[in-house]
Amino acid sequence: MSDGQAVRSRVEVYEDVFRDNDALAGRIFSSFAERGASLVNVLGTPGAGKTTFLEALIRSLAPLSCAVIEADLESDIDTDRLRASGIVAVQIHTHGMCHLDAPLVEKALLEVPPEARLVFVENVGNLICPSSFYLGEKKRILLVSTTEGSDKPYKYPPAFLSSSLVVVNKIDLEDVMEFDREYFLKGVRSLDPRIPVLFVSAKTGQGMAEAEAWIREKVLA
Amino acid sequence: MSDGQAVRSRVEVYEDVFRDNDALAGRIFSSFAERGASLVNVLGTPGAGKTTFLEALIRSLAPLSCAVIEADLESDIDTDRLRASGIVAVQIHTHGMCHLDAPLVEKALLEVPPEARLVFVENVGNLICPSSFYLGEKKRILLVSTTEGSDKPYKYPPAFLSSSLVVVNKIDLEDVMEFDREYFLKGVRSLDPRIPVLFVSAKTGQGMAEAEAWIREKVLA
Repeated sequence: MSDGQAVRSRVEVYEDVFRDNDALAGRIFSSFAERGASLVNVLGTPGAGKTTFLEALIRSLAPLSCAVIEADLESDIDTDRLRASGIVAVQIHTHGMCHLDAPLVEKALLEVPPEARLVFVENVGNLICPSSFYLGEKKRILLVSTTEGSDKPYKYPPAFLSSSLVVVNKIDLEDVMEFDREYFLKGVRSLDPRIPVLFVSAKTGQGMAEAEAWIREKVLA
Repeated sequence: MSDGQAVRSRVEVYEDVFRDNDALAGRIFSSFAERGASLVNVLGTPGAGKTTFLEALIRSLAPLSCAVIEADLESDIDTDRLRASGIVAVQIHTHGMCHLDAPLVEKALLEVPPEARLVFVENVGNLICPSSFYLGEKKRILLVSTTEGSDKPYKYPPAFLSSSLVVVNKIDLEDVMEFDREYFLKGVRSLDPRIPVLFVSAKTGQGMAEAEAWIREKVLA
């Protein structure tokens, strides 16, 4: 460098970012555990149906006290929608940032009512970057939809590998989309045969009972 | 820092990354212009139908010599598909990176036949990060689909603002998806009323003549 400063490599900077993030995420995890509450991180592409899925899921979990942290680059569209359904929702604007990190979640948590037993984070619509950032969640759910095609496990392995549960949404469109379940499941199995996969339509409610049961068994129990 | 090195901020590192990228992208743009060829950068979410769109578009442009640079985190699925259709395709694996940058494109261009007049880059499926990276393209096309919902211009402004053309794909599913054209167009217009928007079904061919005409007028002319 022209000014003679020692050069820190990009890798060193990235390592710092992840170390700081993970330390804070660990504290978030602990503070949830101490008060018997849980954080669940929900990942998926734009339009996978994350908000509709959370609406249906939280309705099925009533009267459990839930809240949603909604992350978007811009706009309050999803938060407004959740609040209109009577769901407690807190908006984070990332202002262009492609993922949530632990500091943003920590800040949003200040607005979440302390009685919430289950807090969902609806991450930024993105199948890539959010999978690298631990937010202190107990479980991570990857939501994909039949409209995205059957090849996503082959193309986006990290999002699948980092998730505790894969939910395939919009099965009401499965036939019209020519979604190939066998090929999709083969792709998930080839990454990790232990990842459970559920098929739902958040819109019609089909399969949502299994999603609710998974939350009760793996997150709340 | 404990070792007494001067600390370079994250911002400085990011500025370096963009400066290096943009300088190389400028050289890529010039080398295309010098030989009367063009590079087009195609952005969109996973499953928007980028490969199907490019297949249909290149078919309509025949006998023009075209090529596609296919970017994926992993897998050769789309490249194999294009080659099976007789289209020249070069695969880039980003190995987890969420976007293409100019150095990756420069490397891929070594494998593109020199007679190609029109080279498309099918970027990594992501509506966020790729919009920040100039690759030396003459034009940038944003492909969204009716299955992603009508609110994308409101939620992902940078991808729209940085594109020369917005193409809404899968209009054969417009009714079943309850896609709201008016709301979508209002969102695009509120960002920039000059961005043209085309509605197509790459699968059925509907609207593809307008996409072909746009390429001939804005890219090839």
